[in-house]
Amino acid sequence: MPHLDPYFKQVDSLQDKFIDRLRDAVAIPSISSEDARRPDVVKMGEWLAEEIKALGGTVELRQLGKQPGREHLDLPPCILGRYGDDPKKPNVLVYGHYDVQPAQKSDGWATDPFILTIDDKGRMFGRGSTDDKGPVLGWLNAIEAHQKAGVEFPVNLIMCFEGMEENGSEGLDELIAEEAKKFFKEADVVCISDNYWLGTEKPCLTYGVRGCNYYAIEISGPGQDLHSGVYGGVTHEPMTDLIKIMGSLVDPNGKILIKGIDDLVAPMTEQEAALYPPIAFTMDDLHQSLGNECAIWDKKEDALKAKMRYPSLSLHGIEGAFYTPGAKTVIPAKVTGKFSIRTVPNMEIDEVTKLVEAHVNAEFKKLNSKNTFKFHIVHCGKWWVEDPNHPNYTAAAKAVERVFGVKPDMTREGGSIPVTLTFQEQLGKNVLLLPMGSSTDAAHSINEKLDKRNYIEGTKLLGAYLHYVAGEIKRA
Amino acid sequence: MPHLDPYFKQVDSLQDKFIDRLRDAVAIPSISSEDARRPDVVKMGEWLAEEIKALGGTVELRQLGKQPGREHLDLPPCILGRYGDDPKKPNVLVYGHYDVQPAQKSDGWATDPFILTIDDKGRMFGRGSTDDKGPVLGWLNAIEAHQKAGVEFPVNLIMCFEGMEENGSEGLDELIAEEAKKFFKEADVVCISDNYWLGTEKPCLTYGVRGCNYYAIEISGPGQDLHSGVYGGVTHEPMTDLIKIMGSLVDPNGKILIKGIDDLVAPMTEQEAALYPPIAFTMDDLHQSLGNECAIWDKKEDALKAKMRYPSLSLHGIEGAFYTPGAKTVIPAKVTGKFSIRTVPNMEIDEVTKLVEAHVNAEFKKLNSKNTFKFHIVHCGKWWVEDPNHPNYTAAAKAVERVFGVKPDMTREGGSIPVTLTFQEQLGKNVLLLPMGSSTDAAHSINEKLDKRNYIEGTKLLGAYLHYVAGEIKRA
Repeated sequence: MPHLDPYFKQVDSLQDKFIDRLRDAVAIPSISSEDARRPDVVKMGEWLAEEIKALGGTVELRQLGKQPGREHLDLPPCILGRYGDDPKKPNVLVYGHYDVQPAQKSDGWATDPFILTIDDKGRMFGRGSTDDKGPVLGWLNAIEAHQKAGVEFPVNLIMCFEGMEENGSEGLDELIAEEAKKFFKEADVVCISDNYWLGTEKPCLTYGVRGCNYYAIEISGPGQDLHSGVYGGVTHEPMTDLIKIMGSLVDPNGKILIKGIDDLVAPMTEQEAALYPPIAFTMDDLHQSLGNECAIWDKKEDALKAKMRYPSLSLHGIEGAFYTPGAKTVIPAKVTGKFSIRTVPNMEIDEVTKLVEAHVNAEFKKLNSKNTFKFHIVHCGKWWVEDPNHPNYTAAAKAVERVFGVKPDMTREGGSIPVTLTFQEQLGKNVLLLPMGSSTDAAHSINEKLDKRNYIEGTKLLGAYLHYVAGEIKRA
Repeated sequence: MPHLDPYFKQVDSLQDKFIDRLRDAVAIPSISSEDARRPDVVKMGEWLAEEIKALGGTVELRQLGKQPGREHLDLPPCILGRYGDDPKKPNVLVYGHYDVQPAQKSDGWATDPFILTIDDKGRMFGRGSTDDKGPVLGWLNAIEAHQKAGVEFPVNLIMCFEGMEENGSEGLDELIAEEAKKFFKEADVVCISDNYWLGTEKPCLTYGVRGCNYYAIEISGPGQDLHSGVYGGVTHEPMTDLIKIMGSLVDPNGKILIKGIDDLVAPMTEQEAALYPPIAFTMDDLHQSLGNECAIWDKKEDALKAKMRYPSLSLHGIEGAFYTPGAKTVIPAKVTGKFSIRTVPNMEIDEVTKLVEAHVNAEFKKLNSKNTFKFHIVHCGKWWVEDPNHPNYTAAAKAVERVFGVKPDMTREGGSIPVTLTFQEQLGKNVLLLPMGSSTDAAHSINEKLDKRNYIEGTKLLGAYLHYVAGEIKRA
């Protein structure tokens, strides 16, 4: 693709401008979870819309109504944008978000979180730098660099940028469902840049995420909390029962002890197994991110598979029991244990729930307790997985090789990114996760940053990807 | 004892005055655990001292220094009082406390907690009414009624009334140790009125309390809390390990699963076994106080023994795990499980600790986890038990029969009253718990009350007890 060279050159020339664009975006504290910042979220959306229009795109600020449960607040608008309208070109739908996590200097930031601050290693610190303002602006930068380089934009770009991602993506599913056959109708593929490389050197393409089934077990006995001196030994204690049941769910090596769960997991194919060894990841990387050498596994492949393609069960905590420092001699009257199962293909939500419910009911029955037992489904979200051999992925892999000189890692995420599944189900199109940032970016944490290299080479990557998509996907 | 009749009559005549005395005491909000109320605690101590002096007693306000760990606060004084100094009479040391638990109308009280309010059933509502201002004033009322009746006071009364009982009894143990051979030197027996009848109709004498060994198990793994999506299945999870160990301590029927604990428990003698059947207590009483039919036992004797003379183990809660409502997908990095064992004769504190530590260490080793395990002894207090056939008890039993017309229940308390053991160990004298209030008094709770009957007949009881003590215990 000889027309990529002038595009890349132009990205390099424009890098200061692109960094200024990110600086302007970071300066707007678009924190979606704080009521007082809602006007800043709206301001950020409007700023983004103006940027798209200034580049020749068309934009609609789609209002999503009141925030459910907090009706004094309007949801920030979803930015529906379009750049290019050539029926001969493929249509690529890109998603991102312009809101950010909360941040205050006093949380422990080394610099003002809303002033982009670049250190001598090229690390650009600022809330939203990597999550997700940098990646969103990457698409705009790509448009601008094509224009300045005089290189024809290879696709029609359909943009969906939301302002509530860090606050439950309220209203987004409904919008996608409604626009699936309207604004998003022509989309041929979907690309989302909102996750991270596994390490710091090698890009990845992400083709799956685990789902999450979250449950609660409630056990109640006495009418009120009791003094353990006065009643210890006399009453059935809800904590004793709950701890027994929670202890029956998973063993210390992470093996889920609920009968039938393993049978639901899709067998590993040889083709899939071959994806793990090349992944740029070491046990040292893992220990560093765990903050300790407490990994269950000794081999990197096992750890990666455990995280990406096998289920897990975590015990999160207990509501209603004593939880502060100190020593309280209480028999809690009602306790609720919380746990969740990360799900993978082919674990259907309801099948998993059926097995879990049967298991905990049987365990409680075994106890022969006079306490009362209730099982609650708190929330369930399904896993998502794509065919990594789809032309959408082939295009992205070629772009990575062209920009970075390496084949990308093919990864799946352990945590959920629900919008992937929504796009897949509502549009029926292939969805690709193409991250820009690296594992050290500290999204959601203090001192969030995006490396200049990731931002500039990432902008090249997004543009190159669009060219390769145009090569792989021909419109009829 | 014919001289009891004029005394009893006088108590009846003075009952309005005695209720006024309690009203004045309740009006001083002597909450020892609230910094801002400390002057009220001191005021209450001074008020009590004046009352004793007005009756012809001598009083020393013993200053106990600064409050440990909160050095901006002076501890309230301990009231050391004396009434009578006849070397031919026995000396009875009585203990009580003049501080109270916190209370605010907004906690749910039906009336102002610091205005004594009497309803048409004779229930006198007010904070401290039963715990422990009513019983403390009972001793003073007894003095006054003897004076007005012209009946000679049968003993020398040594009084020890502290102002920090509801806040850890700071400074008391040191004071008792220091005064054992001084102010308390002449004491022949000790009587404490600061616990409750088992029910509402029948008085009891309490000859034992369980001890409490409180432990914590700390398990840490990852360097910081982790996202269960990203790391579930990859790392050893401290919660999984902790729940397994906590689950190994006790079974749902309250049986302690720690090897060797049962062997430490003193066998039941026939004489002791005979004490339980006559106790006025039913399974209905138990269910009512539990607030539900979740008792482990079907027979009253079994329930009473479980509460009074067998050990129990309660799991109190977990520090460091998720505990609020809602659903957080966290892998807690460090969790601390809290549990305690109520101990009984002949379980020595250190022997129990040794067995517990060996058990939890062995359980952790079984897990084969790479997490880190620590065992903490939080605090341990020993059980106390007296010979219920001692003349001190015989005297009290005769007094109960004289005032109430029934033989008292002989009981042990499930919870701890550490001062009993301190007096027993430091003075080497027999200690008796002689309660005034009933099981429905709601000490520590909202709408605390003392029934008029319990206060007035209780005053008679305390006075009668002193006469019978004088009959049973002759000074050389």
